[in-house]
Amino acid sequence: MQRVVRVNARTCAIEQTPVSDEMSLWGGRQLIANILAREVDPTCEPLGRGNKLIFAPGWLGGTMIPTSGRLSIGGKSPLTGGIKESNVGGEAGQTLARAGVRALIIEDAPDDPASRVLRIDRNGATWVDDLTLDRLSVRETLGILREQFGERCGFLVIGPAGELRMTASGIATTDVTGVQIRYAGRGGLGAVMGSKGIKAIVIDDEGAPPQAGADADCLKKASRRFTELILASPKIEGRRKFGTAGIVATSNELGLLPTLNFSSGSFDGIDGITGKCLADTIAARGGDGRSGTPCMAGCVIRCSNVFPDEGGHRKVASLQYENIALLGSNCGIGTLDGIAELNALCNDIGLDAIEMGCALGVAMEAGLAQFGDVEAAADLLRQIEQATPLGRILGQGAAFTGQALGVRRVPTVKGQGIPGYDPRALKGNGVTYATSPMGADHTAGNAFGTARSLDPLSAEGQLENSRALQIRSMILDMSGLCLFARGPLVEDAELLAELVNSCFGTNVSFADIANEAAATLETERAFNVAAGVSDRLADVPEFMRVEPLPPHNVVYDISADAMQSIWEIEPNRKKF
Amino acid sequence: MQRVVRVNARTCAIEQTPVSDEMSLWGGRQLIANILAREVDPTCEPLGRGNKLIFAPGWLGGTMIPTSGRLSIGGKSPLTGGIKESNVGGEAGQTLARAGVRALIIEDAPDDPASRVLRIDRNGATWVDDLTLDRLSVRETLGILREQFGERCGFLVIGPAGELRMTASGIATTDVTGVQIRYAGRGGLGAVMGSKGIKAIVIDDEGAPPQAGADADCLKKASRRFTELILASPKIEGRRKFGTAGIVATSNELGLLPTLNFSSGSFDGIDGITGKCLADTIAARGGDGRSGTPCMAGCVIRCSNVFPDEGGHRKVASLQYENIALLGSNCGIGTLDGIAELNALCNDIGLDAIEMGCALGVAMEAGLAQFGDVEAAADLLRQIEQATPLGRILGQGAAFTGQALGVRRVPTVKGQGIPGYDPRALKGNGVTYATSPMGADHTAGNAFGTARSLDPLSAEGQLENSRALQIRSMILDMSGLCLFARGPLVEDAELLAELVNSCFGTNVSFADIANEAAATLETERAFNVAAGVSDRLADVPEFMRVEPLPPHNVVYDISADAMQSIWEIEPNRKKF
Repeated sequence: MQRVVRVNARTCAIEQTPVSDEMSLWGGRQLIANILAREVDPTCEPLGRGNKLIFAPGWLGGTMIPTSGRLSIGGKSPLTGGIKESNVGGEAGQTLARAGVRALIIEDAPDDPASRVLRIDRNGATWVDDLTLDRLSVRETLGILREQFGERCGFLVIGPAGELRMTASGIATTDVTGVQIRYAGRGGLGAVMGSKGIKAIVIDDEGAPPQAGADADCLKKASRRFTELILASPKIEGRRKFGTAGIVATSNELGLLPTLNFSSGSFDGIDGITGKCLADTIAARGGDGRSGTPCMAGCVIRCSNVFPDEGGHRKVASLQYENIALLGSNCGIGTLDGIAELNALCNDIGLDAIEMGCALGVAMEAGLAQFGDVEAAADLLRQIEQATPLGRILGQGAAFTGQALGVRRVPTVKGQGIPGYDPRALKGNGVTYATSPMGADHTAGNAFGTARSLDPLSAEGQLENSRALQIRSMILDMSGLCLFARGPLVEDAELLAELVNSCFGTNVSFADIANEAAATLETERAFNVAAGVSDRLADVPEFMRVEPLPPHNVVYDISADAMQSIWEIEPNRKKF
Repeated sequence: MQRVVRVNARTCAIEQTPVSDEMSLWGGRQLIANILAREVDPTCEPLGRGNKLIFAPGWLGGTMIPTSGRLSIGGKSPLTGGIKESNVGGEAGQTLARAGVRALIIEDAPDDPASRVLRIDRNGATWVDDLTLDRLSVRETLGILREQFGERCGFLVIGPAGELRMTASGIATTDVTGVQIRYAGRGGLGAVMGSKGIKAIVIDDEGAPPQAGADADCLKKASRRFTELILASPKIEGRRKFGTAGIVATSNELGLLPTLNFSSGSFDGIDGITGKCLADTIAARGGDGRSGTPCMAGCVIRCSNVFPDEGGHRKVASLQYENIALLGSNCGIGTLDGIAELNALCNDIGLDAIEMGCALGVAMEAGLAQFGDVEAAADLLRQIEQATPLGRILGQGAAFTGQALGVRRVPTVKGQGIPGYDPRALKGNGVTYATSPMGADHTAGNAFGTARSLDPLSAEGQLENSRALQIRSMILDMSGLCLFARGPLVEDAELLAELVNSCFGTNVSFADIANEAAATLETERAFNVAAGVSDRLADVPEFMRVEPLPPHNVVYDISADAMQSIWEIEPNRKKF
């Protein structure tokens, strides 16, 4: 039975209801947007009783379709003050979908801090009372949970930063091996989970086979074709070899790589942090090191990696583009070992590495550490875990840190740290950061992929580009598919309709799906307007309009008014 | 010549223009609202280049009318994110008006921190280059300036907190004796002045006599009648004797006195902090101690005081209700000496004592100091001056402190600390805090004065009451009159029209003035809507809706929706 699990974090009451006809057609980010729009007062305190934390697999979650296990996590963000969906790989999404949970909704909040554990299986949900996990690191927490509940479960956990309700905190999950640490990092949802007094959620899908879909044969056929097209992509080799880090060198060439607190778009130490350097290092060191590992079972892309230290022991998994850009070049750190150390710390403490890379860059600009000083940066991160006053500043993210330290160059849009693409040199991303309901988010409509076909330094065409990319991102987030699975759909948009129809027994076209995506963006926008963080009020930071970014020496030059016209552009209902 | 002085804080260019016909009819808060509405992008960064800091005397500024020297200071607030007017006594307003400055507008911002001194006289404005005042306390700064420029000048200065761009910082001024420290405290305007790189403004009105008005005879006559009515008020004796502290005991009786971080409305240690205790202590200690001193020359009310230490040496001037409530009972501090110590520290460092009382209460709740521990609280304030990490948290005010420390009970509305009236037991103030464009501000429509005639615990009639009080406050802030001068105008509203007409040669009625006040409120509201901090989005803090306040055990029970209907209530155009 597909069902909705509602958990009251104050009374600890758990309620399960069958999915309504309407909700049965909602997936992932779309489900979150609709639930929040109906049930949550947009003006509520994000860490108060009125907010809800929602976990929702996508439309295709629980099936054998490759990469379909992405999990959407959402609520009102304590970082942006607006609606937030943060999307994560790993096993939690797939196990939740297979356990028949269309949506897990955490409501209300306890008066006093708590660190409870919730367990969900295909029959129901229960509190686990005999575990004490307070203030344990993410790695320790996952280790205990895997031992206690078995390695095939899905896990969703927060670290000390989430328990401390810090707005740079995320929600972590892992893969079947327990090696990968994956984050629903953006938007401070770890603090929302912390405010609900929940340290961990264990999802056991024992006895729940993959969902066969309404038309099992059709689903198998469509899924096979999807897989073949993914495997036929010319990009797949690079993704397996270099992972997301494959774009580090290109970002640097394009002059959009965040460097030294967003004061440059290219980095002197680039050679030490490229995807090639990463792959070579992993290969040379051997041991635990791996390139081309999956983050979820059955993924045919396998863009993840395990980065080992010099002795071959796992240092962090996976080392990815955003973290290299923000914890690396943005902090003037030009060694993968240095980046891996900081990334592992973020993972353990429960922090979004993007937000922390921005916050550390701001702290370095304020003189709290020298750019490039790994040990000083690591000490700053440890202060977050220790909850020192300085740690309590940094753990709230870049905007908060900038305010506390009186720094002017603060790289945030809508209160959220800018990911690895400086909008001055990738104008389309400026449009996305300012207009997307998600704020400065790398997965909400990232124009990097179009930087070769559309001059990224020019304003020309960027509104149309961002509009199309925001809808594409929404479709993936509704479906539960990975961003890297988009290739076949770009070739053949109707294949997505086929996948959906074979799951649900529906008869939708891609145009219908595109319409749903556009409508969901409007639902999110309406929530933000009502919350007071309308995209109309947003812009890139002032410094990006006045400080030219080397090496191209460009400022951001699309006006806030011009960006608003994005919403008048009709979505393309034929092309993915 | 009445003129507008515009100072570019980046280029240091100074421009003077005659007042336009339109602007010549604007005063104080009204002038600020109209300039901001026309010239400042509501979405600008409050501490960035786009914001403007405006100083404007009221309509009646520069005349001999008693209490007419209140100065309005405004800009986009870095604390609330909305429009802000903060109103202050002392000599600066009167000297600025007499020097013929209708508005001083500081524009743009330097890239690098600066602590410049600006000097204004009746001929022009110049930069003073030979003074180094960086990071000096307010008291030290005022001492140096008075020595350098003469004691009859007006002074506007910021302390280290403003230079550090802390959002709990205010702008200080003093009286002719240099003893009083008065603050335009609310809204973090000290940080705006700091962001403009201006440490101090000296106003020399040498050779500029009081403004005679368009009809000097009429003005003299009306002014005399106004003075007589003020002096005939039965309240005047209490105000001279006890000052604003006269209401401490009443607040406690009514159960609305902020106590122990807004967890109670009455205080066990009340006897040590009442107005009577204050007056008795001043009288008993003698020395520098004074009750009934004026904050501006010519004031016939004289509600200020000089509070001496045990040896008779001045400790702080003036010790006032809000500071006793917030730094006193709210922090569990039951001695005037303790409160005076904290108040003097706030004054020296450049902090709004109301905001800091709220922030200290939150910090005490988080366990950083015991309630009632004066020395621990003083140490926390000193950390702000030293810019330690904890100081950098506290100096940003209560909301920031609450977020950093993970505290749930944070007494703020629109990001601003709640003044000395808990809205659960004074419902009208909840309406004002949530709907006034100024947020939780004690001078924006304070229902305390009506608490004897309208049940403060009941929701009944509070919308109408707040509506009338907000307009009354606006009229005073446009006129440049002190809140304590309202008595005669309540008796005879047309007297205000008479005062205005005799100044400007106009022929307005009180109804015209009330219309202007209502229109100015709408201008402010529109700015806030455009800035994303519409009153529609505001409410009292969640905890005040769920935690009953002793001793009456009441929660705040006027819904946010109901509060919105305040704007449909027609202003009363006959009664002040």
